[in-house]
Amino acid sequence: MAALSFELAGVDSNSKARAGVITTDHGVIQTPIFMPVGTVGSVKAVTQQQLYSEINAQIILGNTYHLYLRPGVDVLEAAGGLHHFNGWHRPILTDSGGYQVFSLAENRKITEQGVLFQSHIDGSRHLFTPESVMDIQRSIGADIIMAFDECPPYPSEYTYARKSMELTHRWLDRCFARLAETPDKYGYTQNLFPIIQGSTFPDLRRASSEYIASCNATGNAIGGLSVGEPEEMMYEYTALCCDILPADKPRYLMGVGTPWNILEGISLGVDMFDCVMPTRNGRNGMLFTTQGVVNIRNKKWATDFSVIDPSLDCETSRYYTKAYLRHLFVANEILALQIASIHNLAFYLWLVKEARLRILAGDFDSWKKNIIPVLKQRL
Amino acid sequence: MAALSFELAGVDSNSKARAGVITTDHGVIQTPIFMPVGTVGSVKAVTQQQLYSEINAQIILGNTYHLYLRPGVDVLEAAGGLHHFNGWHRPILTDSGGYQVFSLAENRKITEQGVLFQSHIDGSRHLFTPESVMDIQRSIGADIIMAFDECPPYPSEYTYARKSMELTHRWLDRCFARLAETPDKYGYTQNLFPIIQGSTFPDLRRASSEYIASCNATGNAIGGLSVGEPEEMMYEYTALCCDILPADKPRYLMGVGTPWNILEGISLGVDMFDCVMPTRNGRNGMLFTTQGVVNIRNKKWATDFSVIDPSLDCETSRYYTKAYLRHLFVANEILALQIASIHNLAFYLWLVKEARLRILAGDFDSWKKNIIPVLKQRL
Repeated sequence: MAALSFELAGVDSNSKARAGVITTDHGVIQTPIFMPVGTVGSVKAVTQQQLYSEINAQIILGNTYHLYLRPGVDVLEAAGGLHHFNGWHRPILTDSGGYQVFSLAENRKITEQGVLFQSHIDGSRHLFTPESVMDIQRSIGADIIMAFDECPPYPSEYTYARKSMELTHRWLDRCFARLAETPDKYGYTQNLFPIIQGSTFPDLRRASSEYIASCNATGNAIGGLSVGEPEEMMYEYTALCCDILPADKPRYLMGVGTPWNILEGISLGVDMFDCVMPTRNGRNGMLFTTQGVVNIRNKKWATDFSVIDPSLDCETSRYYTKAYLRHLFVANEILALQIASIHNLAFYLWLVKEARLRILAGDFDSWKKNIIPVLKQRL
Repeated sequence: MAALSFELAGVDSNSKARAGVITTDHGVIQTPIFMPVGTVGSVKAVTQQQLYSEINAQIILGNTYHLYLRPGVDVLEAAGGLHHFNGWHRPILTDSGGYQVFSLAENRKITEQGVLFQSHIDGSRHLFTPESVMDIQRSIGADIIMAFDECPPYPSEYTYARKSMELTHRWLDRCFARLAETPDKYGYTQNLFPIIQGSTFPDLRRASSEYIASCNATGNAIGGLSVGEPEEMMYEYTALCCDILPADKPRYLMGVGTPWNILEGISLGVDMFDCVMPTRNGRNGMLFTTQGVVNIRNKKWATDFSVIDPSLDCETSRYYTKAYLRHLFVANEILALQIASIHNLAFYLWLVKEARLRILAGDFDSWKKNIIPVLKQRL
């Protein structure tokens, strides 16, 4: 079938925000977009039916590291790929596992060849190389697959960051080479996105952005941010990368972030975002709403019988009251996790949809400036 | 509004099974019926939307003990009762809390007046009396409310069982008296069901059944069974109670049971059932299906890409595969609990619906004999 394509539908005149349409073999994605994280093939506490009908997710993430360990490539291949395994028939993106190898795995040893590590589940030993990670992602069968990279921590020494970036670039070449040697497994096209690294050093970020831009991939990613650096620094390097990346390809800022991070990222020219925040924080009782941030465990909500967020086109947000959701959290009911996760994801999808409408309407920048203080306020 | 009414729609000629219709102010219930347990106002891991559309629940349970402790009667009254609090607008039944006071609470002290106990949550001291339990159930606002009883353990001494039964009968008189003194709080009628006790002594069971039958309540319950006694004994005492209870009122066998327990109960003349088994066992990976019992954690399901149960009219059961559900359990994903709970409840509701059709069609008894070995087999 066809490689991923990207059409710009509109650009904002007062910022670098863009509205676009990504077309994949599993359907289109209207950008800017937020991608719910489904690490092991399930967005935590949310059914696929709810992702389709309540959240209106257009694309979800899977994670190569987790899916390789459980259920494993044999099961995924026998199923005919992740779409058939989990019943999500819209686009899927898989992270390469690079980030997880560094954040989760034990006793990792990094060499030119790849990374030797022990599973965080059972201590078993595994080797990830650019080639093996491409092969695993072939078996998973996501529409968008990510290059195998090293994501240095913040802060990093300049020398380490430079060597790491250079290794990531050599690994990227091997990823592209391996992908070219191996056919699509399930009859549709998989698209490799390379990842910019370079930590928080302008010359490294610039060099990495130029290298990644030169690959002429169908889309490009900005990695190594949102790893503990100050917010302003994240925006600064996002801007630097966006300005070098080609304008006619989608740009993906990995692992970002809060609602306001996403709006700022959009204004800098980012098209795609993912983050565990809506689900993870939701499971801890933190709700993002069109009126501001709610800590639903707070006693003040005990007799607030208003619905969670009447402004969202999501049945869950408009059906359950704050008082009921607070009760479910206090009583440790599983339904609390479900409602909070569905609501927060519906909010994130509303946010990027609204941003897109504002870009197309021409008032994105002023809308963004007005809404960020509202979204940030603690209710 | 109107007191609960019951119409018989058909009786089986080869057993004592009946099909009926219960009418309450929150709608009708087709019997025999299984009632999902929503202890603290939430059926664990299941949304109200899923209860309505996937499981087709007609009535759910709440528990007085749990709801009294959390969120408390003040919150429930402020909400306008449990239906408004949790957004379940079909009938609700509340257990009296008697059973929980004996099974969960600490340092309980039983007197003629009632039961003094400490909360299992925070150790706080509380007194339940027949009067206070009626008042609490008025505040909760269920359509069917249960008498405050003592449920003796199995086995019990004869003398203890007799004294306990007599206390339960005296408490019942006080429940009826209190209810008559207090108006409905929310504009619809609440119906008190008395509970037969008497442990496993035929003369006590007979005496209790006669006493409960003489109360002329709108429905009657059989308590104190499914507490550890052999299955055959449970059936024997269920039969004894059913034969004494009036035929023109619904009969509720409390806390029962497995799918085959329910079919046997129906054949003895029971109309209503509740049990935590479909949700609790579901959360442990045990699935009841139209083909038999599945331990979904078993390795044999790892690459079984058939759906959980294609014979059920439940999207969840027909959408997700056994391999995917097994993976979710192995990976400790919350979605595993959701899918298993929805499926098992949909199966239980299918079972009683099918039983009703068979009663009306006249072949319930032979259908039951054929299907029980199928349902019991381990797949």
